[in-house]
Amino acid sequence: MSTADATVRAILGDRRSMSPREHGTAYAPANVALVKYWGKRDETLNLPRTASLSVSLGGLGTYTGIRPIDGDTDRVTLNDEPVAPESSFGRRLSTFLDLFRRPDGPRFDIRTRNTIPTAAGLASSASGYAALVMALDQLYAWKLTPREQSVLARLGSGSASRSVYSGFVLWRLGSQPDGLDSYAEPLPMTWPDLRVGVITISSTDKGLGSRPAMRRTMETSALYSTWPEIVGRDLRQIQSALQHNDFQTLGIVAERNAMAMHATMLGAWPPILYWQPGTVDALHRLWRLRDDGLAVYATMDAGPNIKVLFQAADTAALSAAFPDLQIIAPFGE
Amino acid sequence: MSTADATVRAILGDRRSMSPREHGTAYAPANVALVKYWGKRDETLNLPRTASLSVSLGGLGTYTGIRPIDGDTDRVTLNDEPVAPESSFGRRLSTFLDLFRRPDGPRFDIRTRNTIPTAAGLASSASGYAALVMALDQLYAWKLTPREQSVLARLGSGSASRSVYSGFVLWRLGSQPDGLDSYAEPLPMTWPDLRVGVITISSTDKGLGSRPAMRRTMETSALYSTWPEIVGRDLRQIQSALQHNDFQTLGIVAERNAMAMHATMLGAWPPILYWQPGTVDALHRLWRLRDDGLAVYATMDAGPNIKVLFQAADTAALSAAFPDLQIIAPFGE
Repeated sequence: MSTADATVRAILGDRRSMSPREHGTAYAPANVALVKYWGKRDETLNLPRTASLSVSLGGLGTYTGIRPIDGDTDRVTLNDEPVAPESSFGRRLSTFLDLFRRPDGPRFDIRTRNTIPTAAGLASSASGYAALVMALDQLYAWKLTPREQSVLARLGSGSASRSVYSGFVLWRLGSQPDGLDSYAEPLPMTWPDLRVGVITISSTDKGLGSRPAMRRTMETSALYSTWPEIVGRDLRQIQSALQHNDFQTLGIVAERNAMAMHATMLGAWPPILYWQPGTVDALHRLWRLRDDGLAVYATMDAGPNIKVLFQAADTAALSAAFPDLQIIAPFGE
Repeated sequence: MSTADATVRAILGDRRSMSPREHGTAYAPANVALVKYWGKRDETLNLPRTASLSVSLGGLGTYTGIRPIDGDTDRVTLNDEPVAPESSFGRRLSTFLDLFRRPDGPRFDIRTRNTIPTAAGLASSASGYAALVMALDQLYAWKLTPREQSVLARLGSGSASRSVYSGFVLWRLGSQPDGLDSYAEPLPMTWPDLRVGVITISSTDKGLGSRPAMRRTMETSALYSTWPEIVGRDLRQIQSALQHNDFQTLGIVAERNAMAMHATMLGAWPPILYWQPGTVDALHRLWRLRDDGLAVYATMDAGPNIKVLFQAADTAALSAAFPDLQIIAPFGE
């Protein structure tokens, strides 16, 4: 059986015995999938059941600095607050770091800061693990390729594989059991007019984590059998839309894909419903705007919040309809 | 191509030339599908894509009286209010009646009364068309078999095929293009302890009718391809649950089937979402009750309201959680 440790050995090779320098720092953006990652074929290596495609969120992401320290526990600071080593976040982080050091290797001081407002309800684990791998790379001067960074970030969180790049990113499915061919790559297109707006319904904990939710969907939802085909079709259509600067198709495919993902969850037993009453209210309002002629589309991840896709020219109309909308320009203003 | 007229001719034969008597009256119950009817293979004859299974709602339904009158338009009274002949309801009814009379045949005075509170948001077209066919049968003394009544009621509204019976009812898929083998039959089981509670979220018009919603789902939802298999599995499991008086399985299968139906709609383009914010709120509350040990399950049709399935012994607990719950005993108290 392939393990995360085997992946690290395969990638780092002799570099595993290198000594850390004084300090490493890195930044990685958050990302929003336009064609979703939902379901793992390998839970240990976070290998996905399908490929996926995302857009990174520019300046919204995670800064991480890391340096070796004396002592026998890692010291983690998140947004200027110390993280308890025995918390689930602290333990998950140290377990991940253990992949890169011998049992008698160094402990680390890690300072990490999300530029994603906590209230926005955007996941930070993708940018967090991507930034951490990139900071480790700098700390040890491994000189990893982006592809290697992507594979290693994936071991921390599947969608982190996409957060080592900015812009549009394709996470390749791969076919090898060791997962070394399941990495993300940047797509060459830019889309300066693209805007991502976040409608925050709730910033509190979503309850069921995406890992058990994916598992339950795969194990119990009869609708999941269609998901790989849906993703295949949607990846083809959205890449064509990117090539032709066809915003309407981009939006339709992204919304249809997100709704299909939530539909597969609804078909699970017990049903998985991340939506809150405010989610449904916002969706109906958004669809009315679209019926009135505004080119706006929704995408949603494993939580109650809605990300809307629109074009720069429609910013005022969107802000009028959703005064609390937080607007992101993935390719800059 | 088979037409509704051909169905009527095949069933009535010579009886089509019979003269009406003075009066016919009938009652038919509303029904709630435990395994849903979603999608037509023939829109003219209301032939379904799959079989379905329902429970009739006892005393909640439609009383209809019919008598021939002079004049050249039908006169329809619904719950003591006259229905305008040019309204969509009035036109649909007269078009249906035209199937049973020659162009120079009689006009009718129809008085119909729903015992379903309008506010409950329960569909009345099923009980309405079933009662109308049964009243016509009496008016003309055709002496139709229940199976023939079921086929004729289906021409008015698909789910009306099930409303000619009380108790549990199976609507057979059939395979003939003329639809004469697509009729409902009663199942021999009774379940005195079964309760159906209605959580009314909204009693106003649902917007998109189920006919165009079914069509859009079939034409655009990639998830619909799995629906026939889901129904096949659910029909087997729920009939086994009925045989073994296994309420938990009955509830699980019914809720899972309803959620899968709504999931196929969510996968349509544009997405179809009958739910309102209150729907999501009630579902989450219901699921918390179930997590706390109460055997309660949800089913939903093409609208925002929720029907909950539970057992008589849990009536007080359900009423405490949902004070406005309207409780129906399909097999009597």
